[in-house]
Amino acid sequence: MSPARVPEGVDRGWIIPIGGAEEKDGHPQILDRFVQLCGGRDARIGVIPSASQLADTGERYRVLFRDLGAAEVSVLDFDTRRDCEEPGRLAELERCDGIFLTGGNQLRLSTLLGGTSVSRMLRTVNASGVHIAGTSAGAAFLSEHMIAFGAEGASPSARGVTLAPGLGLTNRVIIDQHFRQRDRLGRLLSALAYNPFAIGLGLDENTAAFIAPNEDVEVEGSGSVTVLECGGLTFSSMDRVREDEPVSLLGIQLHILTRGAVFNLHTRKAAAGSLATSKA
Amino acid sequence: MSPARVPEGVDRGWIIPIGGAEEKDGHPQILDRFVQLCGGRDARIGVIPSASQLADTGERYRVLFRDLGAAEVSVLDFDTRRDCEEPGRLAELERCDGIFLTGGNQLRLSTLLGGTSVSRMLRTVNASGVHIAGTSAGAAFLSEHMIAFGAEGASPSARGVTLAPGLGLTNRVIIDQHFRQRDRLGRLLSALAYNPFAIGLGLDENTAAFIAPNEDVEVEGSGSVTVLECGGLTFSSMDRVREDEPVSLLGIQLHILTRGAVFNLHTRKAAAGSLATSKA
Repeated sequence: MSPARVPEGVDRGWIIPIGGAEEKDGHPQILDRFVQLCGGRDARIGVIPSASQLADTGERYRVLFRDLGAAEVSVLDFDTRRDCEEPGRLAELERCDGIFLTGGNQLRLSTLLGGTSVSRMLRTVNASGVHIAGTSAGAAFLSEHMIAFGAEGASPSARGVTLAPGLGLTNRVIIDQHFRQRDRLGRLLSALAYNPFAIGLGLDENTAAFIAPNEDVEVEGSGSVTVLECGGLTFSSMDRVREDEPVSLLGIQLHILTRGAVFNLHTRKAAAGSLATSKA
Repeated sequence: MSPARVPEGVDRGWIIPIGGAEEKDGHPQILDRFVQLCGGRDARIGVIPSASQLADTGERYRVLFRDLGAAEVSVLDFDTRRDCEEPGRLAELERCDGIFLTGGNQLRLSTLLGGTSVSRMLRTVNASGVHIAGTSAGAAFLSEHMIAFGAEGASPSARGVTLAPGLGLTNRVIIDQHFRQRDRLGRLLSALAYNPFAIGLGLDENTAAFIAPNEDVEVEGSGSVTVLECGGLTFSSMDRVREDEPVSLLGIQLHILTRGAVFNLHTRKAAAGSLATSKA
């Protein structure tokens, strides 16, 4: 489930994990930016509410995106794996400028969509320029390695987290959501400690990482994105601790990014971006 | 309230902040190591229970330290600032090989002891080789800049933490206790963001940082010590955010140290120590 190849001369679509509980009334900064990115008044948006068990989740986002000016919003619910092979719905998906995965249960997303034509199409259209956003469970699902569940509020430990294969739009990051609200530093560090190649993105509620085609992570919303970068890791005791023991990890880079700051997933450098020039 | 000058030819005493809730029955690793450091069967230990409002706190530690083999244990309660000038008690303090500050309220410690002869004596005897430990509130109080209180579970913010002057045995660190159990990363980062010169030590419960005279931080106990090192900080938005807004901080080094790992406060380098050679 690696990312699909980006066709020559084309920019990959943006990948937009959101930390959950994004503002919907008042100033829905994140959803508004998503609609604008998808073309504003010309935007055709597909909503996949399959992570949620609530009947009205899809409809709620349909109204929200219409209110924000999108030209057309289709709710595409996939309730069974057979739904995920239906040509009509796949054609509908293919017409979208942007696709939005709601919250709910990320294991429901991976068990329903994993290995189906919907998953393949999501990767293919993203590679050819369609923007894909997900909130909460929808955010966790976007990357190759997905946090299925894990302990909260603990130090990193060998059993601190359970990973599952995700959608695989990118394999550069491991995402955790409701990050500060649910104290998930320990479980994200556990996930990174298994194999420190990936970059950890801890997303606060009402906060999104807009990942540009050039791999710039831009922050939108009221909270922060915690970036954990283990490229310089000098030591990990993950391989020798007992399951319940805390793990020693030396040499992690930590960045707290708020709106305006930028981290590039390719160069692994953080920059203050527009924060550096803005006045108090 | 800077650290007292270490006399020539003498090693400063160890400084031992403990994250609270240290094991007292069963395997009291931390308290046992403290007693051994102070001389084991020859150890004379002074207990200062003034942070606590409970009448039996001092007596409880007296019994514990005697059970661990200490030769002599004096409980020195200071209830008023006048108590802190009493020559008899000061003479008693001066005879100790190690001094232990219990938990309770760190602001009670700083308001009671701050600027008194007891504070001066604690700094002087530590400089000439007496070991000083503190748990929970007693740990917070040990350094020059003390976290008095602060929000838990939040991203760093301009109002996320309230600092007060502490005892000042060292000005190299800012300490936070009950670290993972109470989700205090945000408030420790806030404290560091005010002035990134200090090193943040986040101490889990039943976990201690044994700070050696050569500034090696050695970990004892069942949890981890989170080290936050801002020497390479490339950007902070602390000076321009509103009080309740999250702060952007780029370029922090993060180390999770468990028993065996070492961080040196002078060189600011982390090492796996005995973890590197131990077998699984």
